[in-house]
Amino acid sequence: MSQSETVNRKFVLAERPKGVPTEKTLRLETEDRPEAGAGQMLLRNEFLSLDPYMRGRMSDAPSYAVPVEIGEVMVGGTVAEVVTSDVKGFEAGDRVVAFGGWQDYAVSDGTGVINMGKEPENPSWALGVLGMPGLTAWAGLTQIGEPKEGETLVVAGASGPVGATVGQIGKILGLRVVGIAGGPEKCAHVVKTLGFDACVDYKAEGFPDALKTAVPDGIDIYFENVGGAVFDAVLPLLNTSARIPVCGLISQYNATSLPEGPDRLNLLLGTILRKRMTVRGFIVFNDFGHLYPEFAHQVGGWVSEGRIHYREEMIEGLEQAPAAFIGLLNGEAFGKRVIKLG
Amino acid sequence: MSQSETVNRKFVLAERPKGVPTEKTLRLETEDRPEAGAGQMLLRNEFLSLDPYMRGRMSDAPSYAVPVEIGEVMVGGTVAEVVTSDVKGFEAGDRVVAFGGWQDYAVSDGTGVINMGKEPENPSWALGVLGMPGLTAWAGLTQIGEPKEGETLVVAGASGPVGATVGQIGKILGLRVVGIAGGPEKCAHVVKTLGFDACVDYKAEGFPDALKTAVPDGIDIYFENVGGAVFDAVLPLLNTSARIPVCGLISQYNATSLPEGPDRLNLLLGTILRKRMTVRGFIVFNDFGHLYPEFAHQVGGWVSEGRIHYREEMIEGLEQAPAAFIGLLNGEAFGKRVIKLG
Repeated sequence: MSQSETVNRKFVLAERPKGVPTEKTLRLETEDRPEAGAGQMLLRNEFLSLDPYMRGRMSDAPSYAVPVEIGEVMVGGTVAEVVTSDVKGFEAGDRVVAFGGWQDYAVSDGTGVINMGKEPENPSWALGVLGMPGLTAWAGLTQIGEPKEGETLVVAGASGPVGATVGQIGKILGLRVVGIAGGPEKCAHVVKTLGFDACVDYKAEGFPDALKTAVPDGIDIYFENVGGAVFDAVLPLLNTSARIPVCGLISQYNATSLPEGPDRLNLLLGTILRKRMTVRGFIVFNDFGHLYPEFAHQVGGWVSEGRIHYREEMIEGLEQAPAAFIGLLNGEAFGKRVIKLG
Repeated sequence: MSQSETVNRKFVLAERPKGVPTEKTLRLETEDRPEAGAGQMLLRNEFLSLDPYMRGRMSDAPSYAVPVEIGEVMVGGTVAEVVTSDVKGFEAGDRVVAFGGWQDYAVSDGTGVINMGKEPENPSWALGVLGMPGLTAWAGLTQIGEPKEGETLVVAGASGPVGATVGQIGKILGLRVVGIAGGPEKCAHVVKTLGFDACVDYKAEGFPDALKTAVPDGIDIYFENVGGAVFDAVLPLLNTSARIPVCGLISQYNATSLPEGPDRLNLLLGTILRKRMTVRGFIVFNDFGHLYPEFAHQVGGWVSEGRIHYREEMIEGLEQAPAAFIGLLNGEAFGKRVIKLG
């Protein structure tokens, strides 16, 4: 089912999921295509980004962002074409990066919208390596990780858009880089295509031992976006003065209760103390949004020089978005998941 | 029993404690007073500092410091008088700060020893507000806490040498300061004498609610040196972008096993992420020893101006040291515990 010029299809939040989102979590609705008023522009979404943080927006537990209300359109980053515009700096035919949501059309007053011009190269990359995930990778590694040449960096979710970028930047900066990914195919990609020094399969038997073998000098920086069993294996391998940027905990997003004991909260605090570690959580636009120009210049340069490889998993059709998102939370994505709407 | 000119009394580690140290942990021995050789000096210890970190040195679990070996003299910071010296910059009669251990006499080549001259004011303060605990307080607050005027600082162990100094510096820097201490007497001291805005008794019924009431704007900086139930009460009150310097976890030092579940390790990581917090462990001389001159100038100035109050608990007699140390771990100290040897 493709886009209509008169109808807007949209996914609204039907109910708050308990644990894993299901087909009942989101509901597809149709309505007349919205019109842009004075000082507004009409955007036709071409690409919708799927990102783990969206699970948090479905929940009304205390979080860093306001939840999506029941019946509201699901939020999400989009690349869109400007259809009509009464906003200065934007005209029909421009391609933009916006927060257009899980729908065909959106109306915007231009706030937070980035104009990429009429014919950007690889427009969807603005949702990945050159957008929020890329900035997350670059800022977390450089601003919190404080990388020093020769140190060992371990990256969870190594084949995902954040992890892949973290590791490749780590290589450029002279680090030994070890990825963690799910399955032999992803691990082969991480080493052969992305150029990590090693990759360990967290789904394989003996994962903790394999990780230990892969980091003979211990771990100086652990880029955390997974949590759970992966963190458990990392914890004893961390070196004195290790830095841990925490941008996500995808393994925990669907958890409905705390796991059984023993309670390791004070064990973690004690490890932070004994190893004199720094653990810092961050939400990239809140903490490092002001560094976007520096990021775009540096990482954009590396991407156009071919020094950073980027893998997309393009899925056609808005109607595929809920299943694709559930798969993302289950670790099924291989590269950056994007829905193609046009 | 006082010091002899010919005999050295010393406490050696008799056995590694399981849990709380007992009277069997340390053993008092006597030997001939040692002689200083070429390039050495003989120190007569006048004051021995008792500090929570000593519990870690009794254990051979992986830690940031090498353990004391069985049969070795127990380590500890001391203020001493130079008896004889063949070390440049030190002469008989000088008072020094050294790492002389739990004994009457020590021999040193001068490494790490600070000369305070012949008649320092309050020499024992060099083991407290003007020494390691003071530097811990000042560096943890200023270098990790990143205090901003008007923010709320919560300090555990508020009547102890570190906590009392943290809170008083916090007041000088324009923070709202709330202490946590054990019992009404300590809490009254923290508010009336030290000038904290409030103090909450962690031993009283309803402690978590009382803490919540004391921080109507939440907690921006939590200076952690306790862990356990105090941290549990603090965690839900932390604000976005809170900073947590961790210099100790005294409530956990005698723990022999992890507490029962549920396992809150990922809950802590998730809170660090959602609240974009920074948690950083530090060992003061390793991380911030280079800032000692700045600390001595700034905090020394505040102390001599009377802006920082300092409470000592002086206990006479080396033979009292083991019981005084066990009491310290149990929260019985009220102020800085020092053993007077001379």
